[in-house]
Amino acid sequence: MKPTNVMRATLGRLPAYLQYLKELDPAIYGNISATIIAKDLGLGEVQVRKDLNAVSGAGRPKLGYKTAALIKRLEDVLGQNKISKAVIIGAGKLGNALLEYNGFANYGLEITAAFDIDESKIGKTEFGKPIYNLSNLENYCKEQEVKIAVITVPAKAAQDICDRLTGCGVTAIWNFAPCQLSVPEGIMLQQENLALSLAHLKLQMSNQ
Amino acid sequence: MKPTNVMRATLGRLPAYLQYLKELDPAIYGNISATIIAKDLGLGEVQVRKDLNAVSGAGRPKLGYKTAALIKRLEDVLGQNKISKAVIIGAGKLGNALLEYNGFANYGLEITAAFDIDESKIGKTEFGKPIYNLSNLENYCKEQEVKIAVITVPAKAAQDICDRLTGCGVTAIWNFAPCQLSVPEGIMLQQENLALSLAHLKLQMSNQ
Repeated sequence: MKPTNVMRATLGRLPAYLQYLKELDPAIYGNISATIIAKDLGLGEVQVRKDLNAVSGAGRPKLGYKTAALIKRLEDVLGQNKISKAVIIGAGKLGNALLEYNGFANYGLEITAAFDIDESKIGKTEFGKPIYNLSNLENYCKEQEVKIAVITVPAKAAQDICDRLTGCGVTAIWNFAPCQLSVPEGIMLQQENLALSLAHLKLQMSNQ
Repeated sequence: MKPTNVMRATLGRLPAYLQYLKELDPAIYGNISATIIAKDLGLGEVQVRKDLNAVSGAGRPKLGYKTAALIKRLEDVLGQNKISKAVIIGAGKLGNALLEYNGFANYGLEITAAFDIDESKIGKTEFGKPIYNLSNLENYCKEQEVKIAVITVPAKAAQDICDRLTGCGVTAIWNFAPCQLSVPEGIMLQQENLALSLAHLKLQMSNQ
């Protein structure tokens, strides 16, 4: 079964389900119901059913889910059995913050290196990750078969970096630079806008 | 008219509408139609209508929107006429990246200060923003009437910081610490999960 279209909010809860299921005693919980999962995790039962249906189909009446199969399915959807390498272009404050962030492993993602043009950064490691000269970007991505890249360079440099990435096999780009990038067909682009979350909070506040 | 529930994606496009409208010659464009806005901004007409309906109600048939009124309404929803002060707790890599980020002004948000316990950071300024001793947090928030705070401290310190913030008048919290915070009723909490965007990209990739 291929992964279906899992909503972002659902995706955010999947690691918690997986961790919970793995901690169950398989001798006792060969099957598990959405009702029990919801209760133990303090979530709404409707939400749990919806989340699990999105990844695994409906549970069986009265029996619920086969625990082992659900664990396997969650690991597949989260990609934990297939680590994807990603690189960061731009080892500035934000790039380093992302190098330091350790939540990517939950999703089978590993940031393996960063690239920069600043001589004072090149050759160093941050949080165990090497920072390479930007001139090595293409060779590295090809050799390491990197498919995912994170752009944290200034806006004026972002399109050039984006073109270089798509030119050397990268197919998914997460862009933090405050500009709209254009990518060839078939390339996935996610534009990040850090201000949005805070703006949304402010808007909710003004609605109160 | 009170702001209604504007979706996050819509909110992300509002600054572009506002900038576009402000650049129009008011002598020529006293009225503006969603069709023209969509064409000039390279957006779908249905999307533009939906976005503008969410903030301003429907345009009038054949006439569209009154440009000046729409500008005013966008400024109101974006809160540009009422700057909200926000503080960051934790002047580490991520905290500094947010201090440096200049996209908040589009949404009437100003990060005015950061707080930390690291003596080597306290008293310095980053990107023109002062870093204060965490012990001054309560006094500062009360004096400056800060209602919004961003938590970028390690997970183990986050709940304590959260309690201190809600205790001194902060009503909206954006949490980057990888832990679930509990807040009193009436406090808005937004949990940020940096891994999610990248995980979502990876999932889309595996669906191709």
